Amino acid sequence: MMAATLNQEIIVGVDLGGTKILAGIFTPQLHFLQSSKLSTKSERGFDTVVQRIARCVLDALDEADLTPKQVSALGIGAPGAVNPNKGEVIFAPNLGWENAPLQKELEKILGIPVFVENDCNVSALGIYEVELKRKHQNILGIFLGTGIGGGLIIDGKLFSGFNRTAGEIGHMVIDATGPRCGCGSSGCFEALASRTAIFRELALRVQEGEKTLLTEFLQPGELITHLKSGDLRKALRRGDKLTERVIKKAAEYTGIAVANLANILGPEVVVLGGGVINALESEMMSTIVETAQEYAMPGVLKGVQIIASSLGDQAGINGAAVLGHQRTKA
Amino acid sequence: MMAATLNQEIIVGVDLGGTKILAGIFTPQLHFLQSSKLSTKSERGFDTVVQRIARCVLDALDEADLTPKQVSALGIGAPGAVNPNKGEVIFAPNLGWENAPLQKELEKILGIPVFVENDCNVSALGIYEVELKRKHQNILGIFLGTGIGGGLIIDGKLFSGFNRTAGEIGHMVIDATGPRCGCGSSGCFEALASRTAIFRELALRVQEGEKTLLTEFLQPGELITHLKSGDLRKALRRGDKLTERVIKKAAEYTGIAVANLANILGPEVVVLGGGVINALESEMMSTIVETAQEYAMPGVLKGVQIIASSLGDQAGINGAAVLGHQRTKA
Repeated sequence: MMAATLNQEIIVGVDLGGTKILAGIFTPQLHFLQSSKLSTKSERGFDTVVQRIARCVLDALDEADLTPKQVSALGIGAPGAVNPNKGEVIFAPNLGWENAPLQKELEKILGIPVFVENDCNVSALGIYEVELKRKHQNILGIFLGTGIGGGLIIDGKLFSGFNRTAGEIGHMVIDATGPRCGCGSSGCFEALASRTAIFRELALRVQEGEKTLLTEFLQPGELITHLKSGDLRKALRRGDKLTERVIKKAAEYTGIAVANLANILGPEVVVLGGGVINALESEMMSTIVETAQEYAMPGVLKGVQIIASSLGDQAGINGAAVLGHQRTKA
Repeated sequence: MMAATLNQEIIVGVDLGGTKILAGIFTPQLHFLQSSKLSTKSERGFDTVVQRIARCVLDALDEADLTPKQVSALGIGAPGAVNPNKGEVIFAPNLGWENAPLQKELEKILGIPVFVENDCNVSALGIYEVELKRKHQNILGIFLGTGIGGGLIIDGKLFSGFNRTAGEIGHMVIDATGPRCGCGSSGCFEALASRTAIFRELALRVQEGEKTLLTEFLQPGELITHLKSGDLRKALRRGDKLTERVIKKAAEYTGIAVANLANILGPEVVVLGGGVINALESEMMSTIVETAQEYAMPGVLKGVQIIASSLGDQAGINGAAVLGHQRTKA
């Protein structure tokens, strides 16, 4: 009986990032079975990336002794503005894509119904369904990685607004006289607290003569900006003062962003995730929560949870599976 | 037939502000009949203000040759955090109220069902129903007056979030190193673009020796901070350079705030209102729109209207009437 169900209704969830592709295989009840990882190689262009997504999915299915014929739906989260109805990625600077027909091309190769959404929306959906088990109505997901994005669950549903762009919290200006952002504005949240912003600040400080253990982690010829979030954790645990200061500042800006967003949206749960939080949860969360409480208006955070997601880097594939599951039933 | 309907279903909408009370009388079809105005006198305490609201409502009814018996519902927008279910004003610094049982006390005097909401929510509701005629699903109302507040219509309904505080956009930090705000934070939208912020900036500049025509409008012994938004318009029309510079800066900050909020919420229409916009619409709107377009992410503002409300200072009573009408049917 179980096998029969499995045969028809396997769900695939894909997390498409600027640097890596993660594919997860899930039962119809959305229990995780298996996953597979591949680098994105976005510099080789759209067609190659689509081929690599398909290969990653087939690898994961094969690892679980399954075939595409047993799959009922594939959900995929892509980094950028997405039109979920057309299954297109409208604009994804990290991938160099514009109006990319991801759904159509992926369906052509795999023969599976494909559903596309923004990656942060998908992660918020995964956290809402799998981690929080739909117990709350209004959830705000904040994801700190190479960039910063958000996902909104409003009245129990993914909310993406008029142009399907809602949740673009990374380009909320919070320090108008602050550092330039890649988007052209100044002092965006992303320019103050993303992995990119943290390493740029560290590189600037080192350039100005400050000392840090991080330089010990570098290969010959490597720049500080090439290090990973995990290296920051290592430096912090060895008591590196510069890293401590820079991370504290990023956590404070994140706290201000949480307060801004809580004031605006009135969420019941604020969940933080993404590479930076996954690596530095214990180092950043208390500063984030304290700063948010200091900056939020009276009453706004009463009874509100501000937590780090326990799904870590699995939030994306879980959410993509939820998306596939929901959309194939819709 | 018309008279019979009128006899049972007159709606009253009240806009309770820090300085004045405005009461409007509406037909069951929400056509405006009559209004009345009274100063708030909040310094005299909660009981007096409730008495004054009742007097203002009775004046307006009498002016329209109606009595409280002919009224089916009274909606009221109050400045602060409101619990609409209990009909209480949880926290209203402009009135000096905490946990004030506005609904209960007003019902006791008038014998009419009373429904209480936050004033900006009510104004957004009025603009949505009366001005925009429910043609859009996601509306963001931004109100610039003594303070700054917002109201959100999401999926065609007033959205107030978990603690009923959603839309507190005035305390969104947009310039973390900017001027202190009354709330204790720095660089809040309200500390940069409200009437209070504009006049504080003007007073500072004059104190530092800059010249402005505004000083000509002062009575002996009066401070610049006591002037009204209308005085700014007069100074601008007479070519006052300082006022021009300060208003342009406030409009730019408002544009950044519009971009932030559009990035986060993805509205279809952004409507601006409140005393500052009502007085300075033609002087501020083009800068607001241009700055918003400069700061918003690509695609976010595509097809989005950014407009000044045509309801002016009538948005509040219209919205309060809509609230009363909706809640009495609910």
